[in-house]
Amino acid sequence: MFNGKLIMKKILLLTLALTISAIASAQTDMPADARLSETALFNRDYPRVYDDGRAEFVLQAPDAREVLLEFSEMGIKNPKKKMELQEDGYWHIITEPLTPGFHFYNFIVDGGKLNDPRTEIYSGTYGRSSGIEIPSPDEDFYDVKDVPHGRISVCYFWSETTGGLRRCTVYTPAEYDRKKSRRYPVLYLQHGGCEDELAWPKQGKVNFIMDNLIAEGKAVPMIIVMNSADISDFTFVPRGKSDSVMGSGNMGTYGQSFGPMLLNDCIPYIDANFRTLRDREHRAMAGLSWGAMHTASVGLGHPEVFSYLGCFSGFGRVSEQTLETDMNGIFADPARFNRDIRLLFLSIGENENRGTDKTCEMLARHGIKTVYYESPGTMHEWQTWRRSLHEFAPRLFR
Amino acid sequence: MFNGKLIMKKILLLTLALTISAIASAQTDMPADARLSETALFNRDYPRVYDDGRAEFVLQAPDAREVLLEFSEMGIKNPKKKMELQEDGYWHIITEPLTPGFHFYNFIVDGGKLNDPRTEIYSGTYGRSSGIEIPSPDEDFYDVKDVPHGRISVCYFWSETTGGLRRCTVYTPAEYDRKKSRRYPVLYLQHGGCEDELAWPKQGKVNFIMDNLIAEGKAVPMIIVMNSADISDFTFVPRGKSDSVMGSGNMGTYGQSFGPMLLNDCIPYIDANFRTLRDREHRAMAGLSWGAMHTASVGLGHPEVFSYLGCFSGFGRVSEQTLETDMNGIFADPARFNRDIRLLFLSIGENENRGTDKTCEMLARHGIKTVYYESPGTMHEWQTWRRSLHEFAPRLFR
Repeated sequence: MFNGKLIMKKILLLTLALTISAIASAQTDMPADARLSETALFNRDYPRVYDDGRAEFVLQAPDAREVLLEFSEMGIKNPKKKMELQEDGYWHIITEPLTPGFHFYNFIVDGGKLNDPRTEIYSGTYGRSSGIEIPSPDEDFYDVKDVPHGRISVCYFWSETTGGLRRCTVYTPAEYDRKKSRRYPVLYLQHGGCEDELAWPKQGKVNFIMDNLIAEGKAVPMIIVMNSADISDFTFVPRGKSDSVMGSGNMGTYGQSFGPMLLNDCIPYIDANFRTLRDREHRAMAGLSWGAMHTASVGLGHPEVFSYLGCFSGFGRVSEQTLETDMNGIFADPARFNRDIRLLFLSIGENENRGTDKTCEMLARHGIKTVYYESPGTMHEWQTWRRSLHEFAPRLFR
Repeated sequence: MFNGKLIMKKILLLTLALTISAIASAQTDMPADARLSETALFNRDYPRVYDDGRAEFVLQAPDAREVLLEFSEMGIKNPKKKMELQEDGYWHIITEPLTPGFHFYNFIVDGGKLNDPRTEIYSGTYGRSSGIEIPSPDEDFYDVKDVPHGRISVCYFWSETTGGLRRCTVYTPAEYDRKKSRRYPVLYLQHGGCEDELAWPKQGKVNFIMDNLIAEGKAVPMIIVMNSADISDFTFVPRGKSDSVMGSGNMGTYGQSFGPMLLNDCIPYIDANFRTLRDREHRAMAGLSWGAMHTASVGLGHPEVFSYLGCFSGFGRVSEQTLETDMNGIFADPARFNRDIRLLFLSIGENENRGTDKTCEMLARHGIKTVYYESPGTMHEWQTWRRSLHEFAPRLFR
């Protein structure tokens, strides 16, 4: 026993010495033009991002036959890339430059789709996905600054529509806790396909975008409510069919209960539990991609509830020929539309090419007012939607 | 184009039919004595849990040489188990019965430590870990019930101590939003080693435990504040040494800034932004494992700030011989201790065997009042700590 203890002590001392020398070498290991991705977990030294937008990943899996890096969103060309096994048992890759902002990714290890143990996990295209943050020239608008910070609440409420307890997230501006009798307008803000009510608070940086806008006096203080678009209604993908919920689901039923749930359950809960302004003039709705479709159907379909609307990277089918009946005839009377809908904001990534600009031009020819925003150099990705919120929020409740 | 559209329509109809038949077969695939773990992500049919506590896992990795299932906590015997490759390319295992409650796990795929893509991710022993929930005979106390639900806020505040913005999570009881002038007592509640401020809200189920206790009139409505114990101070583990932060860190510096941060930065922030009762009589502190050590050092070290203390599965070194000087002499004057500290609650898992009962007996012999709780049949695991909170909270602020 005595010898065993002595050996253990020696091993501990040796480990300590090795660790200290390894720390010293590891800390000088970071190239001058690289930094840790802000998504990296504590005590991890990867993934790294380079000044030119390249990203570097490692995975320790010494006995694997093949490891691929896969980007699971539309913003990345050539989404699958082979990683190289190094002598130390780590698989390694440096990508070509990626577009600025947030990207989902995962590894494929011998055919198994798995997340990177070195980075934060996000609700995304793959249920839960790894994420990386590429620095952006315009990141100032979502930087964490020394300004008053609002908070994000995770709230639980009962839904008669879905027959169960639901969770939503709520941003309250910094002053909400201090100005104890003031009431606030509300923006209902939706995520995209396969995400949930944590998407805007995490990869969307909704709180930091709003903290900065409000501190600069560019947006009025508002409450923002984020719901899951009933992602669990997505068609069940059985084992053996697919590890992904994308591409094999039935989009027809996906999120069908969302509208009644929002109107009949969530809004009454929010109005009962937060100091809200409870009329259409002080209610907005916006969303990205699948959430933009919800905004077009639920928001635009209920002008008695909402008067400001934002559709980021998505809108729905409208055409010059069928405009009078499209979207339940909301565009049939332009004068009434412009009176009821104080803002219809449509945005798109420059490289998405969905014809949103053409839609706005067509609507303008028919006297329908919209605001169009195009995110430079981005596709169907979070940088488009962060920028869209940053452009949209200052136009609300004025 | 016309033919292309027709073919697409036929493919869609075929896909729909195949999907419906697949759903039918997948739904009958679940054994009568099994159910999906409540941690499973949407559209996943694993991991499963059996009535007798066994758990079943799958991983699609057809080209892997070896896949292990690993439990990364102290509550599980034989933590690594070999999974079997089946003909369909899925690795598969059914474990022996596990103890009730929450367990961390991960897969080891050809030497790579990776998370299960089918289940929710938790802050834990491995940075981010997969989790599974084993049904428990006493799960009623943390069940989601039709009672008023409080909310969890994610709050940001500036810390002079650490020189940066920090995040804490705050439970406010359901009535907090309605009783707009009432002030509430505050419990500061800490996680364990390698976890963070999301541990109690996620695997700890703090909000559901408190919602139920408050609804039953068993606990007074209170605010609960959860901080990260400065996990980023943990010694850097360089690439090539370990994928885990456990076992190779320097526990001496781990969390050193926590005390000053809590006392000088967090408590003032909470008192300024929430409707708190701001005296020692209405302030409690508790924590599990590493958080119990913090409670013993910071909480018990500041009776001018806290008067109720709970140490779950951890306490610190006290002995009969050195009792007068242990923990800065707090036990030297038993009468004063019993007057200042309205509750010192020490708890432990029955199978942890840390001698906490002996500590309480020894303190009793010296006239020091404590309350001892032992969680039946559990070890150093979350079921011990959920039960500890459930026993501790009703004794606060009475």
